[in-house]
Amino acid sequence: MAIGVMLADPGVDTVAITTTFGNVDVQQAAQNTLELLALAGRPDVPVAAGATHPIGREFDGGAPQVHGGNGIGGISLPAASRPLEPTAAAETIVRLAREHQGRLHIVATGPLSNLAAALELDPELPGLVEHVTVMGGAAAAPGNVSPVAEANIWNDPIAAAAVFAAAWPMTMVGLDVTMRHLFTEPDREALLAAPGAVPRAIGEMLDVYFAFYEPILGFRGSALHDPLAMAIATGAVTMALAPTVRVEIDATEGPGRGQTIVDLRGKYSGYPEQSGAHCRVALQMADPFAPVLRETLLRLP
Amino acid sequence: MAIGVMLADPGVDTVAITTTFGNVDVQQAAQNTLELLALAGRPDVPVAAGATHPIGREFDGGAPQVHGGNGIGGISLPAASRPLEPTAAAETIVRLAREHQGRLHIVATGPLSNLAAALELDPELPGLVEHVTVMGGAAAAPGNVSPVAEANIWNDPIAAAAVFAAAWPMTMVGLDVTMRHLFTEPDREALLAAPGAVPRAIGEMLDVYFAFYEPILGFRGSALHDPLAMAIATGAVTMALAPTVRVEIDATEGPGRGQTIVDLRGKYSGYPEQSGAHCRVALQMADPFAPVLRETLLRLP
Repeated sequence: MAIGVMLADPGVDTVAITTTFGNVDVQQAAQNTLELLALAGRPDVPVAAGATHPIGREFDGGAPQVHGGNGIGGISLPAASRPLEPTAAAETIVRLAREHQGRLHIVATGPLSNLAAALELDPELPGLVEHVTVMGGAAAAPGNVSPVAEANIWNDPIAAAAVFAAAWPMTMVGLDVTMRHLFTEPDREALLAAPGAVPRAIGEMLDVYFAFYEPILGFRGSALHDPLAMAIATGAVTMALAPTVRVEIDATEGPGRGQTIVDLRGKYSGYPEQSGAHCRVALQMADPFAPVLRETLLRLP
Repeated sequence: MAIGVMLADPGVDTVAITTTFGNVDVQQAAQNTLELLALAGRPDVPVAAGATHPIGREFDGGAPQVHGGNGIGGISLPAASRPLEPTAAAETIVRLAREHQGRLHIVATGPLSNLAAALELDPELPGLVEHVTVMGGAAAAPGNVSPVAEANIWNDPIAAAAVFAAAWPMTMVGLDVTMRHLFTEPDREALLAAPGAVPRAIGEMLDVYFAFYEPILGFRGSALHDPLAMAIATGAVTMALAPTVRVEIDATEGPGRGQTIVDLRGKYSGYPEQSGAHCRVALQMADPFAPVLRETLLRLP
C-alpha cells in the first residue's frame, strides 16, 4: 500500500526502493517489490536488497502470522524477470543521496538496518538528505510486539538508535496515528472490485492481515501503518499535531527494549521548543486517512 | 493533602503513617508528619520512619525546587513533641498487616522502599494485606523526571520492581490521572480563608508548589497526585477506566529507567483479561476531583 501511495503521486520521483529483513527475509521482500512494480507497470524503479538480519542478532523468521508466509498475504503475483541492483541497499542510499543532494526524502517502513548501514558508510549522509520519514515506534500509544515496543524498532533497536541520533530532520509516524486510521471490509471490497490489477492484488493481500487484526480490533480490518507514513512524506495528508521533540531508542535488553522514548513532557503547555530535537512525532492527523488511501489505490493500474 | 483526605474520612481507621526519603530526607518527612498530625488534633496516629535511601544508591537530596527545602513549601508548623515509633517502617508495616489481617490497605505516596523492605522481612505479606494503592508511574502519560519515568518510581526502581511483582491486589494511580486533576488559585484562596488551621497551612504550602508548576501548566496550579491516590483508596472517588493489566518496572540503567511498563495493548478491544495481572491502572476518573478535594480539606480542623 505504501508503494502504491508513492507511485500514484505524480509529484514524486521514485528513485529507488531498498528492502530489508522484517516481516519476511530480505530476498522475499525484494522479490515482492519487483513483482509489485512489474504489476504497476514501473519496471524502471531500481530495487536494491539490504540487511539480512539485525545488528548483533539473527533474523527471527519474520511475522508470517501477520502477513502470511510470503509477506503479501500468501497471494501469488506474476513473476518479474529483471534483476536487483548490483549494489546493496546502503551503497544505493549513499549514492542517491549524493546524486540528489538536499532533495532525497527517505521513507523507512521496516527495521532501520539499511539506514544505519548507510550512516556507517557515509557519516556525511545526514547533511545530504532532505528528510527521513520513519514508520515505527509509539509515543503515547501501546506497542505492538511488547507493551512499549513497535515491531520495526524492536526488530533492530541498535540500528534505530543510530538513525534517531543522526542529525537529519525526521518525522516519526508511529502507532499513535497508524492505529487510529483503519481499513475495514468495505475498503477491501472496493479494492477487489477495482479495474486495476494493483488494487485488486492489494485487496487480496489484505485478507490475511484483516484476520490477524480481528482479535485486536474486535472486527475485520487493519491499521494503515506504512501507507500513512508514505502519505505524510509525500504531503498527501496533513498532521494536526506533530511536535518536534527529543526521541531516544531503548537499545537495552531490559523490559523497555525497542521503545521509542519520546519526550512529550511539554504536552501540558503546547510543546515548547526542545534543544537538540530534530524529529517531528505524528500524534494526530487532520483528517481521516482511509478514504484518501482508498481513492489513491483505486487510481492505480 | 493525602493525609488530610485520610483523616477527614470517618470510615477510615488510620493505623499508622510511615515515612521514607523522597522529596525530603526521611527524618524531615517524619517531622512534617508529626507536626501535621498535631495540627489536625490526631496525636494518636503512630508515625514510623523508614528508608533513608534507595536500594543500591545514595539519597539524591530530594526535590527542594518542587516542594521547598523542608518539603512543605518552606512554611513552619507548630513543633510536635511526641516521639516516632520505636520500630522502623518495614517492621511496623509487617506488624500491622498481621494485626489487621486481610483488612490493611496500604497507600504509598513516595518511593516504594519501605514496602520493598517489608516484603523482604515477611514474604507472606502479600497474602496478609487487603490492597496496595500506589501513587506513582505513568502508563500512557509522559513522565515527570524523565520522558517516561515518574518521580516515586524513579527514586527507587528496584524497590518498585519488587512491590509491583508481589502477588497482592494493587491499584496504580499515576500521572495519567493525577495530571488531569488540578488545584488552581481559587482553590488555594478558599483554603487560606478556611476556619481550620490544617486547610490554612495547606493553602500556604501550595504557594511554592504552584510556582513550580507554572511553567509546566502555563498557569499557577498543581497536580493532585497524592490526594487523588488516597481518595481512590478510601473510595471517596470512582475510577471510570482502570483496567487490570500487567505492569513491569524498568529497573535498568537505560533510558527507560524507572518507567512503569503498563501493558495497554488491549485498549482497542476493551482490555480483555491478562493472565497474571493483579494491578488496576487508573486511566480515567468518573468526575472532577478538585471540587471534592477542596470540600474535604475545608472540613478539617
